[in-house]
Amino acid sequence: MIETRIKQSVRDVSDFPKPGIVFKDITPILKDAGLCHAITAALVVQLSGLNIDVVAGIESRGFLFGMALANALNVPFVPIRKAGKLPYKTIQQSYDLEYGSATLELHEDAILPGQHVLIHDDLLATGGTVVAASKLIEKLGAVVEGYSFLIALDFLNGRDRLHAFSANTFALASY
Amino acid sequence: MIETRIKQSVRDVSDFPKPGIVFKDITPILKDAGLCHAITAALVVQLSGLNIDVVAGIESRGFLFGMALANALNVPFVPIRKAGKLPYKTIQQSYDLEYGSATLELHEDAILPGQHVLIHDDLLATGGTVVAASKLIEKLGAVVEGYSFLIALDFLNGRDRLHAFSANTFALASY
Repeated sequence: MIETRIKQSVRDVSDFPKPGIVFKDITPILKDAGLCHAITAALVVQLSGLNIDVVAGIESRGFLFGMALANALNVPFVPIRKAGKLPYKTIQQSYDLEYGSATLELHEDAILPGQHVLIHDDLLATGGTVVAASKLIEKLGAVVEGYSFLIALDFLNGRDRLHAFSANTFALASY
Repeated sequence: MIETRIKQSVRDVSDFPKPGIVFKDITPILKDAGLCHAITAALVVQLSGLNIDVVAGIESRGFLFGMALANALNVPFVPIRKAGKLPYKTIQQSYDLEYGSATLELHEDAILPGQHVLIHDDLLATGGTVVAASKLIEKLGAVVEGYSFLIALDFLNGRDRLHAFSANTFALASY
């Protein structure tokens, strides 16, 4: 079962990025090409009920399986990046961090009005970044069709925050 | 021909990230799923003479086709990241920028001594980042088998700097 394989591969790193946080390190998954293929296939199966025109992946780890998923679905891949990284005209959305704030950007021509967008990232925690990504999608007049994660930390209740945009939140492995 | 298709899709953005630089924006490529499939297939063909145990991709754009290439070759994918992003024990390599310096990191257990590593990034410019990535590979006792880029800016002579590590530098499109 894919959830078991993911949980067996993920490495817990204590006190990263700061004391008290146990970080889910996915790099052991990336070293297992067979598991990577299985994950991409499982994402396609899990999302088969959705109407996906575009996959948007959040920098940087969301680029890995986001790109693989877009290619498997034969739809465009769109990168959502930290401020200052995208070269063309962008729209911006800021969001709060525990200390300070951060900004995500999206090319203004990346997605057409009315397109249905799946947002992908490797991990759902509190959902702050993903909410900002969702606002960018809606600013372009597009629709958040759903969310796809490898891992969801359900004890942080991120799914509740995403429900305002879409009821379709999927993760291959949950804690 | 793949080079023509890449050049037709890439968008030149003037004065990014600073005045006088013409940036090669690959996001239009990512929106063309058929072209993405063709690029991954062309990378596999272009690299077929090499002995590749691992593909290492440089954050962030090197994650996109680096991961696709590793999966297509059925070998591990290893991320090389900016300082402070990798959660486990890392080794570091600093390199000079025009103003100041930057640092790349690699997990110390990412690659085994003696493994043959292909380094992938989207674009080869002066080669400073890729040289730093190569030093990380060699610090772990591994071998730089070669380099793979979507685009090489040959007028910046990056290939010359890479020759100290490997004679195998490939790009799908050159300027």
